[in-house]
Amino acid sequence: MKRSGNQTLIFDNVHVASSAGVVGKKEGEGPIGQVFDYIGMDAHFGEDTWEKAETRMQQMAADFALKKCNKTKDDVDVVVAGDLLNQCVGSDYSVTPLGKAHLGIFGACSTMAESLIISAIMTDGDYANRTLAMTSSHFCTAERQFRYPLSYGSQRPPTAQWTVTGSGAFVVERMPNPSGICITKAVIGTPIELGITDTNNMGAAMAPSTAFTIRSFLEDTRTAPTDYDLILTGDLAEEGSRILIDILKNENNIDISGVHKDCGLMIFDKVKQDVHSGASGCGCSAVVLACEIMARFQRGELNNILFIGTGALMSTTSAQQGQPIVGIAHLVQIERR
Amino acid sequence: MKRSGNQTLIFDNVHVASSAGVVGKKEGEGPIGQVFDYIGMDAHFGEDTWEKAETRMQQMAADFALKKCNKTKDDVDVVVAGDLLNQCVGSDYSVTPLGKAHLGIFGACSTMAESLIISAIMTDGDYANRTLAMTSSHFCTAERQFRYPLSYGSQRPPTAQWTVTGSGAFVVERMPNPSGICITKAVIGTPIELGITDTNNMGAAMAPSTAFTIRSFLEDTRTAPTDYDLILTGDLAEEGSRILIDILKNENNIDISGVHKDCGLMIFDKVKQDVHSGASGCGCSAVVLACEIMARFQRGELNNILFIGTGALMSTTSAQQGQPIVGIAHLVQIERR
Repeated sequence: MKRSGNQTLIFDNVHVASSAGVVGKKEGEGPIGQVFDYIGMDAHFGEDTWEKAETRMQQMAADFALKKCNKTKDDVDVVVAGDLLNQCVGSDYSVTPLGKAHLGIFGACSTMAESLIISAIMTDGDYANRTLAMTSSHFCTAERQFRYPLSYGSQRPPTAQWTVTGSGAFVVERMPNPSGICITKAVIGTPIELGITDTNNMGAAMAPSTAFTIRSFLEDTRTAPTDYDLILTGDLAEEGSRILIDILKNENNIDISGVHKDCGLMIFDKVKQDVHSGASGCGCSAVVLACEIMARFQRGELNNILFIGTGALMSTTSAQQGQPIVGIAHLVQIERR
Repeated sequence: MKRSGNQTLIFDNVHVASSAGVVGKKEGEGPIGQVFDYIGMDAHFGEDTWEKAETRMQQMAADFALKKCNKTKDDVDVVVAGDLLNQCVGSDYSVTPLGKAHLGIFGACSTMAESLIISAIMTDGDYANRTLAMTSSHFCTAERQFRYPLSYGSQRPPTAQWTVTGSGAFVVERMPNPSGICITKAVIGTPIELGITDTNNMGAAMAPSTAFTIRSFLEDTRTAPTDYDLILTGDLAEEGSRILIDILKNENNIDISGVHKDCGLMIFDKVKQDVHSGASGCGCSAVVLACEIMARFQRGELNNILFIGTGALMSTTSAQQGQPIVGIAHLVQIERR
């Protein structure tokens, strides 16, 4: 039995072999800029389009992650990847040169968590020895696809978030009775929408699903927020984090405020870097987890955390047709053993 | 050990509980029109946009599939779904009312096979008791997203394919030592691109990856094409099927011509229905497998088949930037036990 309660999956054999993150210039200038494996000089990463730059970031993150655990692409059985671009082209073109089996996924900004969960299932269950889990986002590709041409210079409301230019990659491997940093449990997210149609307020759209996922996990495992060193959400930013804490406190009598952090509030300096409500994008939680959080694990500052990737499911077409934004939140427990 | 050779996954506990397919008017008028569970009167399925119609088809297919095995959504642990629309909105909005854990996937037209593989891994490995695997495509949503406004009436070259309006859904369940129709093996596809940039020739872009997947499976299992009642590809259509058979025969000395069929050549009457090279779309292989092929299994006409979902990974942006089309092909072995 690899499940506990209604929602929680249990893994006994999943080791995080390594992780890496590649970011853009603005991210490199932020408060945790020193932890990333590579900081681009501009938005292009040597490529002639922003979309190819996003693919290049994924390839670099994968290379760094594989080198850190002394592996090559030949040691990888399956690549689990996806991104925000239409038809996931950031990932489609990054995985192809690897020449490995590929599961394409779409979870919007929850993709890093979803790829870690599928990687954990495959390695824990002995369907793969080793996977590469990765994702990316790019401010310029996201702006032009989802919003306006960059040169238009449109104004942004205070609830708007700034898409991170960055890619994170993890090498996940099967290790019976593992030691070190392990993925030990997970909750696959349940999509929830409560009528939010404002595409400049993703945090509010994602918070209810995030609350549902966290509550489900705590109920299934009969644990409390204080049992964890950190409850880390993906990119709820200021508005969404406030709503999450409110929902859990007022509707579920669960107080996470003492241990909660949000990747969207860690990567930029909100005042100096003018990012309004905070950061967003698949790359946001991916690089914060891959670099900042994994470094804290390695320094012994963290031993047991919950990482909840948060995603807003929608497209420009669905938004223009007045459809509400669906939130989803996938949870991964990461422990040192 | 749940693997054989380099690529093949082995499942001992995966039962296909039921399947269903919902299609549009043109598909209902085709040569296998009588097998579908529901045929729409027009492109709208009672909704005010084509995109919502695509979502509605998925919901109907899921309802039919659940009813056929006397289950409700409450009996489902995880919904694995994706589609061709930007950010998979066809699926995002179909899964939300189910209120169940959801893994969003993107495999272009290989999505039905990818969702069956992830469902098989989850149920075989005891991470879920029962999953719902589904996908869809819609001629009108695909045309306006990928090509031209429908009212423009652009000409199509002979290699072009016609996107199926349809949705297929499968209920996959854990059953140790299963009897009945089972998913017994799978190969996760390896993305391959050989420089095809013609978005009106998807078959050619997908054939090399399809050949690689079939060859890998036959090598891993030490079997020959004649060991199977049917080798069914997703939507290579005429051009892609010819290339697939050529590659396997000339480069690998494997002759599948006696047992090969392509869903893209089964759903429409090529001459009477004017579909050029054949059909395509996530819905194409989904509804052919869910209705026509499963009915043949139930009638005892089929006992052991290989289903290979074929996908072309690209977006309008990648095509406009001159990037080649990446092919991917996921294989599922379905057997009666």
